[in-house]
Amino acid sequence: MTDTISNASSDLSPIQTVSVDLGDRSYGIEIGRGLLETAGERIAALRPGARLAVITDETVEKLHLKTLQASLAKAGIDHAVMTIPAGESSKRFSQFERLCDEVLGARLERNDAIVALGGGVVGDLSGFVAAAVRRGMDFIQIPTTLLSQVDSSVGGKTGINSRHGKNLIGAFHQPVLVLADTGILDTLPMRDFRAGYAEVAKYGLLGDEPFFAWLEANWKAVFAGGPERDEAVARSCQSKADVVVADERESGRRALLNLGHTFGHALESAVEYETARLVHGEGVSIGMMLAHEFSERLGLIDGAVVARVEKHLSEVGLPIRMSQIPGQLPPAGTLMDIIAQDKKVSRGNLTFILTRGIGSAFVEKGVEPAVVHDFLVEKLSS
Amino acid sequence: MTDTISNASSDLSPIQTVSVDLGDRSYGIEIGRGLLETAGERIAALRPGARLAVITDETVEKLHLKTLQASLAKAGIDHAVMTIPAGESSKRFSQFERLCDEVLGARLERNDAIVALGGGVVGDLSGFVAAAVRRGMDFIQIPTTLLSQVDSSVGGKTGINSRHGKNLIGAFHQPVLVLADTGILDTLPMRDFRAGYAEVAKYGLLGDEPFFAWLEANWKAVFAGGPERDEAVARSCQSKADVVVADERESGRRALLNLGHTFGHALESAVEYETARLVHGEGVSIGMMLAHEFSERLGLIDGAVVARVEKHLSEVGLPIRMSQIPGQLPPAGTLMDIIAQDKKVSRGNLTFILTRGIGSAFVEKGVEPAVVHDFLVEKLSS
Repeated sequence: MTDTISNASSDLSPIQTVSVDLGDRSYGIEIGRGLLETAGERIAALRPGARLAVITDETVEKLHLKTLQASLAKAGIDHAVMTIPAGESSKRFSQFERLCDEVLGARLERNDAIVALGGGVVGDLSGFVAAAVRRGMDFIQIPTTLLSQVDSSVGGKTGINSRHGKNLIGAFHQPVLVLADTGILDTLPMRDFRAGYAEVAKYGLLGDEPFFAWLEANWKAVFAGGPERDEAVARSCQSKADVVVADERESGRRALLNLGHTFGHALESAVEYETARLVHGEGVSIGMMLAHEFSERLGLIDGAVVARVEKHLSEVGLPIRMSQIPGQLPPAGTLMDIIAQDKKVSRGNLTFILTRGIGSAFVEKGVEPAVVHDFLVEKLSS
Repeated sequence: MTDTISNASSDLSPIQTVSVDLGDRSYGIEIGRGLLETAGERIAALRPGARLAVITDETVEKLHLKTLQASLAKAGIDHAVMTIPAGESSKRFSQFERLCDEVLGARLERNDAIVALGGGVVGDLSGFVAAAVRRGMDFIQIPTTLLSQVDSSVGGKTGINSRHGKNLIGAFHQPVLVLADTGILDTLPMRDFRAGYAEVAKYGLLGDEPFFAWLEANWKAVFAGGPERDEAVARSCQSKADVVVADERESGRRALLNLGHTFGHALESAVEYETARLVHGEGVSIGMMLAHEFSERLGLIDGAVVARVEKHLSEVGLPIRMSQIPGQLPPAGTLMDIIAQDKKVSRGNLTFILTRGIGSAFVEKGVEPAVVHDFLVEKLSS
């Protein structure tokens, strides 16, 4: 926890709001520095009289729970706190059961709300609890990592892992409010901030060339914590919201959000989700590079596009090659097996997100497995 | 299992279909004798190529699984079978976890389907599994009890029990198809058939006087298994569908479906869900009588209406008085505590379904607890 983001201004920036328009399940994402201190009044304004169950993990509890509780107390909001162990292994049935029971034991009614204070693990697990208790309670997210602010705060995906794979049990359950306090990110280890940044860059790469160009020019300020960070989070949330609104249940366009993820997931799985070797955003970064190189191989883009992506991802400090993953990787055949088992593979066809240029990604169904295999053989040995 | 419905015709009746119009989640309920034998072709027509996980319980497995499997085999549908112990205690986290894991282990994909072959327990549990695996798989119901054909096959409520109460964990998840084979009901014990009939009568009492009058004239044929049984199931499903379509998430009018249920649930809870003493439909029957008597007490209806309800429920063999429940009941104060804890009680107010006549039930919020208490004291001693 030593290598954290510093030089952050302590002034309160103005608040930005991204609206996610999903009919009667619409909600707002509020983005800005210092939001956590005003969480109580914002929640009270939205849901007067509601009681809360705040779910957090042991790491986030130490850093940020007191600030939230002070704010809730100031707004007169009655609440219970439930803490889970930090880390992916909390996304399991036993924690789901325990939290459902504790929320009911705290006598929360259907008009009360679950608050997730934490990163993706806390958000995914708490969201599924909120979806299931009394067949659906209000859900409020206070994401504390860059990844969860720009990714899991939009889309309504919640869930836990099964022995058969990650995120295989869950629900689509939209939050009623998301509070993305960008100042909280100052407490993130640099490696986690960078990994979250891979998803920020993804939004530019998949559909917004001007945003990618803006990131090339402004990424240092995004890392440092100025208003550019708020801007990057807001623009990422807006990008994801645009895709999700168009395709809430992930049948078509929403697949674009998986740019870099087919290769990335395969690599995460290949290292058995050992985060000392690879975290999700790093896998996505390498995966996005592979998606661009594979697109070049198929004649969709030229080398200059690949070089531009490579330059930006590497200058922010993200890994861009499989060889940067510590330790041995399995051979291409094993990676292909993992890709074939991936839940995004439908009835035997391989689906990849490819690109025709920066900001011009598209869904390609029916990619030849043999071509991918040969490509991976070559990349693994380079 | 000796006291079963008999005299059933073995001819195939024509199929009736009730449509539940919920936009892109609309589905049909097919109703008729012998439907189980054609389940395979009906499912194949709706979801060509889909694989199935058939969830059933030990009792239904012995009676009806072979017929279903023969039909699936004839239609060339690949399927796995998962069996749970019969009874309410299967609606628990451990069975939910086990079934989710088994469905994934059978390698069912998101386009495949879960089939519930059984009564309410199988339907509620399987439906929640279908809602949660891969964040939502297709769900097909083949209800095998009268209660589940006329009640849980419409509305999309799925769920399991918690140590804090029944049905407190779950999801709203609509089926894509319901096959209500009225011939299957010939294998039901008479007590279970009668208990299901209480819900049939409820639809008349809450909003359809002509249907109640029709039941008064035709109930014997409904019990015997003629086309009148299909008609009663279809009209019940249509009644519930009308209410559910108007109010999918149970905020207003849908509460009418709870006619007789506030008192009924309190009695079920008072006997600790000991089915030897009281099953759900019996509690509903006594509860409906109490709701009418309470409505009379409040001057909403006269004694002739109460007498008409009493005559019909008692002539079909349903219990109508709390004194018919074997064993000791707790005092009125305890029943009031149970009612106050009921999930249908919102922020301290007592909500009851009362009536202004046969077919004219309405939701009354803010009933004086003291008036209910005095009423129960008197009824318990009568």
